[in-house]
Amino acid sequence: MKPVNVGLLGIGTVGGGTFRVLQRNAAEITRRAGRPIVMHTVAERDLARAQSLVFGACQVVDDAFATCRNPEIDIIVELIGGTGVARELILEAIAHGKHVVTANKHLLAKHGNEIFAAAQRHNVMVGFEAAVAGGIPIIKALREGLTANRLEWAAGIINGTSNFILSEMREKGLSFEAVLAEAQRLGYAEADPTFDIEGIDAAHKLTIMAAIAFGVPMQFEKAYIEGISKLEPADIEYAESLGYRIKLLGITKRTPAGIELRVHPTLISAKRLIANVEGVMNAILVKGDAVGVTMYYGAGAGSEPTASAVVADLVDLARMLTADPEHRVPHLAFQPDQLCDLPVLPIEAVETSYYLRLKVVDRPGVMADIARLLSDHGISIEALLQREPPEGEDRVDIIMLTHRTLEARIVAALAAIAELPVVEPQITRLRVEDLRG
Amino acid sequence: MKPVNVGLLGIGTVGGGTFRVLQRNAAEITRRAGRPIVMHTVAERDLARAQSLVFGACQVVDDAFATCRNPEIDIIVELIGGTGVARELILEAIAHGKHVVTANKHLLAKHGNEIFAAAQRHNVMVGFEAAVAGGIPIIKALREGLTANRLEWAAGIINGTSNFILSEMREKGLSFEAVLAEAQRLGYAEADPTFDIEGIDAAHKLTIMAAIAFGVPMQFEKAYIEGISKLEPADIEYAESLGYRIKLLGITKRTPAGIELRVHPTLISAKRLIANVEGVMNAILVKGDAVGVTMYYGAGAGSEPTASAVVADLVDLARMLTADPEHRVPHLAFQPDQLCDLPVLPIEAVETSYYLRLKVVDRPGVMADIARLLSDHGISIEALLQREPPEGEDRVDIIMLTHRTLEARIVAALAAIAELPVVEPQITRLRVEDLRG
Repeated sequence: MKPVNVGLLGIGTVGGGTFRVLQRNAAEITRRAGRPIVMHTVAERDLARAQSLVFGACQVVDDAFATCRNPEIDIIVELIGGTGVARELILEAIAHGKHVVTANKHLLAKHGNEIFAAAQRHNVMVGFEAAVAGGIPIIKALREGLTANRLEWAAGIINGTSNFILSEMREKGLSFEAVLAEAQRLGYAEADPTFDIEGIDAAHKLTIMAAIAFGVPMQFEKAYIEGISKLEPADIEYAESLGYRIKLLGITKRTPAGIELRVHPTLISAKRLIANVEGVMNAILVKGDAVGVTMYYGAGAGSEPTASAVVADLVDLARMLTADPEHRVPHLAFQPDQLCDLPVLPIEAVETSYYLRLKVVDRPGVMADIARLLSDHGISIEALLQREPPEGEDRVDIIMLTHRTLEARIVAALAAIAELPVVEPQITRLRVEDLRG
Repeated sequence: MKPVNVGLLGIGTVGGGTFRVLQRNAAEITRRAGRPIVMHTVAERDLARAQSLVFGACQVVDDAFATCRNPEIDIIVELIGGTGVARELILEAIAHGKHVVTANKHLLAKHGNEIFAAAQRHNVMVGFEAAVAGGIPIIKALREGLTANRLEWAAGIINGTSNFILSEMREKGLSFEAVLAEAQRLGYAEADPTFDIEGIDAAHKLTIMAAIAFGVPMQFEKAYIEGISKLEPADIEYAESLGYRIKLLGITKRTPAGIELRVHPTLISAKRLIANVEGVMNAILVKGDAVGVTMYYGAGAGSEPTASAVVADLVDLARMLTADPEHRVPHLAFQPDQLCDLPVLPIEAVETSYYLRLKVVDRPGVMADIARLLSDHGISIEALLQREPPEGEDRVDIIMLTHRTLEARIVAALAAIAELPVVEPQITRLRVEDLRG
């Protein structure tokens, strides 16, 4: 089927990630979208940089406006940023009947009303999942997933740089200035960090979330904004001793009198899940009258996490351009003739770590016997816990955590261990997962 | 615009919630969907029960098959459950060209392949967001939000009953049997709890997630399933002393050899966010190659949380039936002519709690003066922390948490307090949020 042709404006961090993800996952994406999504043109002022990142049949040009008018291109992806030329380019693309995908929260928070009105007039869509919280599909959740609800509020950690700084200040007891310097060195903060640390970037994203949560126009200029640059380590400590963490939150709430729209450092009980979101990660809580509170967590910035959201918008558009409405989203996510025939593995073929609890006679050499049998089966021990037997008992609990191994091996090892006369045959075995990705 | 007519099969817990949410949020839902979604008919064997729950113009009947054939009805919502008559009804509705929405994970895990094939032939959609993790829009995240990714694994707490039992066993040190009895008394566990505690319900949901994550057919019969009924408090304690929590996880993973599909009690580092998901709440981690790990959290069961997912599917269908593809999802979630004109409030009109830090001369009566000034402005103190002054210093930090109050009041109170000669004028003030909903 004829591919969907994409013109990319700006191949910086996110643009490079978008190019890479579209190439690497082309087969998977085509199986989902129903047709190939192809990078047709990359428009970039720094031609040398673009040439070094682009490969395959994609052409590199320096005229972004011509790309917006190119009749072969179906969708323009704007990743230049800022509110100047990016706005003009998006309006140019819309005027030429092209759908647009953008990660530009600054532009949408300030000129979204104008841009969406133009898109409406020209019958095109502007996708902006990447504009809020990077790879977390929060726009889709708010706009489609929670449509049954009267939404009451949303509150989120939506700036990774400032969350990283707050995490480091708390964990290491350092001053704001010291951690900012560290963040700049690590590339988590920009040379001019004002937008991140003063809450402006968070307010852009919050403005967009409020608009789609409550169906109000973008009103960035009315947001209350307070950053983290004046926070003192003493307050982080005092908050902690009261059972709280300090996070830079964007909060929007519907009250009978109006909409709250505010970004500021906020104390949250350390018991809340969101208080434990650390480092550059983002998380957004949304309260709906039917669903209650839901939370969405993930990487809020970075090359490929943000590209994940850009490409998801491209797949949405490709599905829309391709399918009868009834087949827009395939039931099993992939086109019916594009399912995958990987078999489901038997549990014996699964590899994981294990927790083992054995009751053994408390006698020298027992542990050595067990360790040898595990080792004979290629299983190594990561942690060991042995409890003193209670007064008058000669049996003792041995608890072990193993390194990763095949289920088949642990089954065989445990059968051998259960044969040992000093081990009670009833052995408890649970699986351990890391879940860090 | 002509309403979308819904026929509801079965008005139990979730059916009742669906009826209520559609009625209560009718205005909001219409603004989002572009046309009203109307409950046209409720089919229920227990007519008396149905009559007691249904109001307005909706008719109550006892013939569910006739409802599936009723030409006035556009969408059938199946909330009867089970794999018998529910399957026949869904196939009947599909054969009559009706779209279907269902929360029936058991049915989809076992007969999903047949049902989706029939839907494909008859050009209708079967929505099933409610079948996995209740109100959390995880199906939408997997099927639409993360389409850029090669998904590597998903792992989740997808059975609230068993998570409640594990939470209680850990917190109270009780046996499985004791907590199960308590859960049954509270209505969190059914009289026959087998599906929940033996991991079968979780395996149904996991089967569905695996299918849409990897594009494989439903293969429930190949899932490895181990429940929590044999877990002993000793293991929960030992795990904790090693830094782990035990959760019943559904895990599906793509390996070069095949798909892992397994439900079992799992040790997870207590540092992971998901290890801290307690009570009846659900949470799902998804790992994609571009986005990294994202997490989705919320109520996984219950009347209105599940109804939230049912109605979101109805809005998806209504938007599809109504709009040109380009306008399926409005840019700001609500139809462009249906935006809301609530104003954004100034920060002075916001109500929240406050953290205050004052440096004062360490002298009797100071705290009384401060408390009186707060009280004069209608502000009450929730917690107070006073640190002994360091050796040789006569200034001391006073930290207070206030109850909820208006920002305007705190500003006025702090201005008055700063006038006190014993208080240093530089007062730190941070906002505190509860975020429980």
